[in-house]
Amino acid sequence: MAGNTFGNILKVSTFGESHGVALGGVLDGVPAGIEIDFDAIDYDLQRRKPGQSKITTQRKADDGVEFLSGIFEGKTTGTSIGFIIKNKNQRSGDYGDIAKAYRPSHADYTYDQKYGFRDFRGGGRSSARETAIRVVAGAIAKQIIPEISIKAYVSGVGELKLTTPYNKIDFNKVEKNIVRCPDMDMAGKMENLINEVRLAGDTIGGVVSCVIDGTPVGLGEPVFDRLQAELAKAMFSINAVKGFEYGSGFEGSKMRGSQHNDLFNIDGSTKTNRSGGIQGGISNGEQIYFNVAFKPVATLLMPQITIDQNFKEVELNPKGRHDPCVVPRAVPIVEAMAALVLADYFLINKTRRV
Amino acid sequence: MAGNTFGNILKVSTFGESHGVALGGVLDGVPAGIEIDFDAIDYDLQRRKPGQSKITTQRKADDGVEFLSGIFEGKTTGTSIGFIIKNKNQRSGDYGDIAKAYRPSHADYTYDQKYGFRDFRGGGRSSARETAIRVVAGAIAKQIIPEISIKAYVSGVGELKLTTPYNKIDFNKVEKNIVRCPDMDMAGKMENLINEVRLAGDTIGGVVSCVIDGTPVGLGEPVFDRLQAELAKAMFSINAVKGFEYGSGFEGSKMRGSQHNDLFNIDGSTKTNRSGGIQGGISNGEQIYFNVAFKPVATLLMPQITIDQNFKEVELNPKGRHDPCVVPRAVPIVEAMAALVLADYFLINKTRRV
Amino acid sequence: MAGNTFGNILKVSTFGESHGVALGGVLDGVPAGIEIDFDAIDYDLQRRKPGQSKITTQRKADDGVEFLSGIFEGKTTGTSIGFIIKNKNQRSGDYGDIAKAYRPSHADYTYDQKYGFRDFRGGGRSSARETAIRVVAGAIAKQIIPEISIKAYVSGVGELKLTTPYNKIDFNKVEKNIVRCPDMDMAGKMENLINEVRLAGDTIGGVVSCVIDGTPVGLGEPVFDRLQAELAKAMFSINAVKGFEYGSGFEGSKMRGSQHNDLFNIDGSTKTNRSGGIQGGISNGEQIYFNVAFKPVATLLMPQITIDQNFKEVELNPKGRHDPCVVPRAVPIVEAMAALVLADYFLINKTRRV
Amino acid sequence: MAGNTFGNILKVSTFGESHGVALGGVLDGVPAGIEIDFDAIDYDLQRRKPGQSKITTQRKADDGVEFLSGIFEGKTTGTSIGFIIKNKNQRSGDYGDIAKAYRPSHADYTYDQKYGFRDFRGGGRSSARETAIRVVAGAIAKQIIPEISIKAYVSGVGELKLTTPYNKIDFNKVEKNIVRCPDMDMAGKMENLINEVRLAGDTIGGVVSCVIDGTPVGLGEPVFDRLQAELAKAMFSINAVKGFEYGSGFEGSKMRGSQHNDLFNIDGSTKTNRSGGIQGGISNGEQIYFNVAFKPVATLLMPQITIDQNFKEVELNPKGRHDPCVVPRAVPIVEAMAALVLADYFLINKTRRV
Repeated sequence: MAGNTFGNILKVSTFGESHGVALGGVLDGVPAGIEIDFDAIDYDLQRRKPGQSKITTQRKADDGVEFLSGIFEGKTTGTSIGFIIKNKNQRSGDYGDIAKAYRPSHADYTYDQKYGFRDFRGGGRSSARETAIRVVAGAIAKQIIPEISIKAYVSGVGELKLTTPYNKIDFNKVEKNIVRCPDMDMAGKMENLINEVRLAGDTIGGVVSCVIDGTPVGLGEPVFDRLQAELAKAMFSINAVKGFEYGSGFEGSKMRGSQHNDLFNIDGSTKTNRSGGIQGGISNGEQIYFNVAFKPVATLLMPQITIDQNFKEVELNPKGRHDPCVVPRAVPIVEAMAALVLADYFLINKTRRV
Repeated sequence: MAGNTFGNILKVSTFGESHGVALGGVLDGVPAGIEIDFDAIDYDLQRRKPGQSKITTQRKADDGVEFLSGIFEGKTTGTSIGFIIKNKNQRSGDYGDIAKAYRPSHADYTYDQKYGFRDFRGGGRSSARETAIRVVAGAIAKQIIPEISIKAYVSGVGELKLTTPYNKIDFNKVEKNIVRCPDMDMAGKMENLINEVRLAGDTIGGVVSCVIDGTPVGLGEPVFDRLQAELAKAMFSINAVKGFEYGSGFEGSKMRGSQHNDLFNIDGSTKTNRSGGIQGGISNGEQIYFNVAFKPVATLLMPQITIDQNFKEVELNPKGRHDPCVVPRAVPIVEAMAALVLADYFLINKTRRV
Repeated sequence: MAGNTFGNILKVSTFGESHGVALGGVLDGVPAGIEIDFDAIDYDLQRRKPGQSKITTQRKADDGVEFLSGIFEGKTTGTSIGFIIKNKNQRSGDYGDIAKAYRPSHADYTYDQKYGFRDFRGGGRSSARETAIRVVAGAIAKQIIPEISIKAYVSGVGELKLTTPYNKIDFNKVEKNIVRCPDMDMAGKMENLINEVRLAGDTIGGVVSCVIDGTPVGLGEPVFDRLQAELAKAMFSINAVKGFEYGSGFEGSKMRGSQHNDLFNIDGSTKTNRSGGIQGGISNGEQIYFNVAFKPVATLLMPQITIDQNFKEVELNPKGRHDPCVVPRAVPIVEAMAALVLADYFLINKTRRV
Repeated sequence: MAGNTFGNILKVSTFGESHGVALGGVLDGVPAGIEIDFDAIDYDLQRRKPGQSKITTQRKADDGVEFLSGIFEGKTTGTSIGFIIKNKNQRSGDYGDIAKAYRPSHADYTYDQKYGFRDFRGGGRSSARETAIRVVAGAIAKQIIPEISIKAYVSGVGELKLTTPYNKIDFNKVEKNIVRCPDMDMAGKMENLINEVRLAGDTIGGVVSCVIDGTPVGLGEPVFDRLQAELAKAMFSINAVKGFEYGSGFEGSKMRGSQHNDLFNIDGSTKTNRSGGIQGGISNGEQIYFNVAFKPVATLLMPQITIDQNFKEVELNPKGRHDPCVVPRAVPIVEAMAALVLADYFLINKTRRV
């Protein structure tokens, strides 16, 4: 409720600011006896980290995670897994006037008004740096449900939109290009667009899509805790997300029932999948797929007029290293949050029959 | 976690099936001393109930709510408010073969697979009838935060889309037409479209939009419990919802940062509001606005081939009374869920400073 | 958190005042497919109800429970079970000055100070009448874990103390006398003492003990959610409880480790059971046993000087029907709360290994 | 629910094993703007740490806490406070056969049976070493409610019992002796007894008492979340606790109502305080006082016959450093858990009136 915990049976509590000593988390409720694949965790962290390509921020961060508990002789013990990622390049110095300015479309103003106080070093707790912790937790969550595959990719950058349907994606291509778009031509166009925007000191939004395969029938709870409701909350908890749709999504609202209904095959599977793998809040065994819209990053490398904490006008002239487009690095974050939801609901569902 | 509870400090737990004895709820955490406006509760129930106009289901339901506790001499006492709505027209009779069929794009199949068991009377717990209980709880939630106005309206039916911006809506017109679209011309077109669909035995989707005014700065929690995340969960907990976007939404993902950023006025308000009243998960005092996409109702008044619980093909020939388009009746439900979120976060925020 | 909900996966939310329209509850998280034994529920309600013998209050209450949802064709459906007990003899009349008095050692003063407001009709929400709802929920909880037997009995009334060890109790005798003490001689003495106290217009405290048999090894969670911690919370949530001890209890604090340790048999059972069936917060398969101390009922049938809400002295001269000793009727309440804990932890434990 | 989190609005999640890399916690929900007194945290840690006197274990541990987040320029920021305590003397070596033995009255057997797996290094997660984290969290909790004083002391060691009433304690004496008993004569006797037991290779139980002063009227929630219920859960979450009583406690169960009731003074305070500062689950402004019974430490410095994980008999011949009596070091732990409850309920109570 205070905002730093996510999940029910599988629950992660996180902490840390962008320029503090370290970020970290406690992942509780992981069943005992899972042999942890540390390389898989590192792989997801590498995909999220800054500085990985020329279209992401050039800021370097060594996101090595240290596990402090809950794993013994390589296996989960059933108790809480504590872990931290140290901030190696904390700026100790003078933040100057910028510290007192409220950057447009950032959390500076709202944090200050809410708490009467803010950590002005690089965004503090509102910085997307905290998503590294989610990626660690999500990478473990994936290992609780190895039979479920969760794969995200970039499907939109600005006006550029991938039109390949969710069930025709060649996931082998996602990591073959720095945009993480599973179509090499479109990936090239997106890369060019991001570069153009970057050179202009500007930023651009985009869309991450995700396909979940292998979900057993029965995950999701009635009424308030529908599977899609928890997925939506998970996605909107990520910085910069403005929209979420699953299955037929917003397009579905334009359709007629006779077009939209998914008719059954005689094995209980469906001939079409406009429902997006969920009926009545509960997975039906078909693929779950959804889109997540990200706004453009608010930090621009161009001057902006804004106000400071004394409500005086000031000019921002930010320097440094920022992502011109967040979606390539958001891919593992979307996967991580989806994995936390699926693994949690998988565990919850073990209690639904005697 | 078992799905029938929503909220943190303000928490509603609900029960009831479409054809059971009664539906009901327990609303806990309402502060003491609020003088309850029962007419306001009844007004919202009237807007949700079936049979209110020719474009909604002609099924009659007398949705009178009975309060059983928590209110004394017209005021809330601070303890839990229990209430029920009786099902007056329970069908006692024979459900026949239809009971064993899995209706396409309904929850029949998933409930049966999850629980090994289902209440086949009219959808049981998965029926939208349970939203009457949300409307009662939401109507009380509105009274916890009288300074915040929460108003929803229909902005889309099928391909028809209202283009009036969120901040130009004339809310006085919403209840002046049976579609609940605040533009009389568009409302007429929408009504015609719904009628046409209805006569064809078909159904159609739509979009409900909502504008929240008067939110104080500071509601919302960092990281996982952002205000938009809880709103998203709230909306996706409503039957038939396929998409949610706030502020600039999916369109925002196509923009550049230099177009999208909301610059400050010197009083801390912003010149534009693409952020949708929320920065970093915390309300900034601007209007909060969002769109909710609803798929077409799955129950058609035309034959459909489906399977039954023995995985045999059967033909459905539903008769009776169903909504051809759910969005007019969804308007008070969207408001109710938004009110539960806002009131809950309003109470949480009382604890954030010493 | 607002006080009216108990449990994790198995969760009950309750409402209702002693003189309101009805009390009720929502029991969520009951697994699907359990065939409900309604007679067993009624049996526990009969043991709790007032007016059952001359040593309990002569007040009559018809505690018939009405189930409103969650049970279909006699079996649980997996969704929330709503139920109510109507208050048939609501006094509609004048409460007079007594309404404004704060009864000594009652909740009148604290409710009024906390909420700025109280329902003065018979104690309102603070009345023990709400425990009827716990008994219903607990009776269902028992049916989730039929292999676990939970049996409580009276082991103390005033200075009278049953010295039979927990593992020598003849549970067949508990319901053979109106005190619910499993030793007929001691029961007779206790009955005489209660009668003597009752005739003097006074009340007396007592102790309820409970023995839980058949618990599988492994229920209970590390650190904060130890099985004994949740049992303690459950017991201290009952009106008038002042003490709880399990296993060796307070006596154990006087012992040396060499006396206290329970040595193992080679099958993993223990030769002694001073631990009370729980090691490190987790059940070890031995019998769980504990004592719950109840203070004397605060309502006396003799004059007491007190103050009213204007902080003026007033004399209370209560008439009517009150329990001279609460422990005989507390027996099924203790069982119910223990059953809610055990069933909840039984369900939680299903998620602890992959 | 998985056991490693405590609290509602103020919530601590902990991790760490006795011989792992580090222990730590995340404390969420601390209001913004509190100037942290680090010396006060260190003071409480010093009182808990091993090796502080000849009657506690001679094991050395440098319990320096490192704060990683949530505090900026000495003040709380309102976001989660992460912190760790490193284990400096991890034994890397061979645990040998002892690793496979189940120590009597320890958690070895139950952890192994529950999780199919255990960390056998010094007790793993079940070790009382985790209470260091509680002491840090509790020391911060105390600073949220500076007007409330929470003071614990040793009132019993074995058969030795301090008879000074709770409201006559001279708290200045508590830290004047190594037993932490506020009566120097009794402290001397207790010290002698503990030494005698220690020299025999044995251990002994004891009682910690606690007095809470300055609680405002109104803390505590109705029905399930009574203040005493949460305090009881808090205390029973501490290793080795077997009993808890507050106010008149078990003695109260022997009394008559006419002796037990606390009559009011005309200012709303009470002439006596058998209620222990809580009426109907809600604080009434009087002193809260309670006793916590601890069993003797299970690890003895004498041979014991037990079984190993293959259910073979083995002889334990433990060497090393263990507490002969846990209560002197339990004093700050009891205070910490009480502080977490009081601060949490203080914050909850801010939401109970509009």
